[in-house]
Amino acid sequence: MSEGAASDPGTFAGRTYAAVEHDGRIDHVAVEEPLEIRVDGRPLAVTMRTPGHDSELAVGFLYGEGLIDGAREVGPPDDLPANAVEVSGPLVREPGERRFYTTSSCGVCGKGALKEVAVHSERLPDGPVVPRLLLAALPDRLRQPTFERTGGLHATGLFDSEGGHLVAREDVGRHNAMDKVIGRAVMDGMVPLSDRMLCVSGRLSFELVQKAAVAGAPILVGVGAPSSLAVELASDRGMTLCGFARGGRVNVYTGAQRVAD
Amino acid sequence: MSEGAASDPGTFAGRTYAAVEHDGRIDHVAVEEPLEIRVDGRPLAVTMRTPGHDSELAVGFLYGEGLIDGAREVGPPDDLPANAVEVSGPLVREPGERRFYTTSSCGVCGKGALKEVAVHSERLPDGPVVPRLLLAALPDRLRQPTFERTGGLHATGLFDSEGGHLVAREDVGRHNAMDKVIGRAVMDGMVPLSDRMLCVSGRLSFELVQKAAVAGAPILVGVGAPSSLAVELASDRGMTLCGFARGGRVNVYTGAQRVAD
Repeated sequence: MSEGAASDPGTFAGRTYAAVEHDGRIDHVAVEEPLEIRVDGRPLAVTMRTPGHDSELAVGFLYGEGLIDGAREVGPPDDLPANAVEVSGPLVREPGERRFYTTSSCGVCGKGALKEVAVHSERLPDGPVVPRLLLAALPDRLRQPTFERTGGLHATGLFDSEGGHLVAREDVGRHNAMDKVIGRAVMDGMVPLSDRMLCVSGRLSFELVQKAAVAGAPILVGVGAPSSLAVELASDRGMTLCGFARGGRVNVYTGAQRVAD
Repeated sequence: MSEGAASDPGTFAGRTYAAVEHDGRIDHVAVEEPLEIRVDGRPLAVTMRTPGHDSELAVGFLYGEGLIDGAREVGPPDDLPANAVEVSGPLVREPGERRFYTTSSCGVCGKGALKEVAVHSERLPDGPVVPRLLLAALPDRLRQPTFERTGGLHATGLFDSEGGHLVAREDVGRHNAMDKVIGRAVMDGMVPLSDRMLCVSGRLSFELVQKAAVAGAPILVGVGAPSSLAVELASDRGMTLCGFARGGRVNVYTGAQRVAD
């Protein structure tokens, strides 16, 4: 690995890619570093993320977990400025030991996970009706500058109902990219995202649908396949869930009333 | 969603895909359901996984975290047979509150994460020397029956040094597919995997390199891109890390001494 690539994590704040040497040439890889999220000095979570937009990541994560209900002050702590963020409280609810949706779920079953999300998210509003071709084309509008350089990043984009590009973020973790976009929206007073669309570069897991539902987004589009529990949760919350958006086509799994053919 | 698809998680044990209806036709999606991993009755972790090979998943996960050092008895608990597994103790070490590598790391920096892994994994042995073309072809030898049906699963395969196929597992979570393969290897007394190769269908994160390192695998190949911390950890442990294995080509990021051109 070339000089400065990853030997000093402090040099990474805000850097999304690093140089590596392989097979006799210099190439680039996506940066992955841990980030600790603290609230009023108390460490709540650590995530492996691509540096940059860390404040958004923290706010989006906490919002998606139902732990905060709006913007908060966020900044780097003095002791670990590159790999931690400090969020001002208070929390809306007290996290238990199993504090996050994907690692909690009452009774540890799919139904429990759905119920848990329902506690923190209203059923989604009617929202916009959007042409199928626009949904199929959303991934083409996702901006992924670092992916183009490294091939190693997931992306999430936020769009208005005409497909206008509002925010896009990249990260080695698909959930982090979503958290960053939602965090930006929370900080800009844009949630709930009642007339917006979210688009992700990969597959559609339970976790991504959960985050979109809590943020109030009625439409979620993915380039990849959904899981069974993603489809179930989207159906339960009244979300329009679209997968395999590529080549001018898209599968509409739930909420077809928002799709105009 | 069609009858029985995901309405009763109990029907899912061992089922890797479910039928859904979209756009007027029946299709299949990968099943995603929570699994609770317990040791001697104590819940240690919950992961969102594709059902099937749950015992392997539990053993591989605990082994990868340095919490057990060999095979254990595993079975379904009486109260939640489909979505929990009970592993017999004792644990090798007591997990702290931040108990897992990807959510711990002393001081929360990349270097800390590397040190943490080093505590639980020896530097890797010399291992085999393998033709570059064989490494590039490993993904073609990965068996992915459920991916072919759903497009929604990651896979990990274990191979001998001639590229002979030993074990392959699929899962909605890339880390789970790796855990299942390593769990199988632990249960069969095959670890450390000193003369074996691991191959994954996606990108190479810190977490996947960590799991391979703890299992003693000297060679890890991925279809996708590595992250910076994956390259760093592979270098630190002496692992051969290969990415972008496709179309007869492969990038060798670290450990090139095991690759014959």
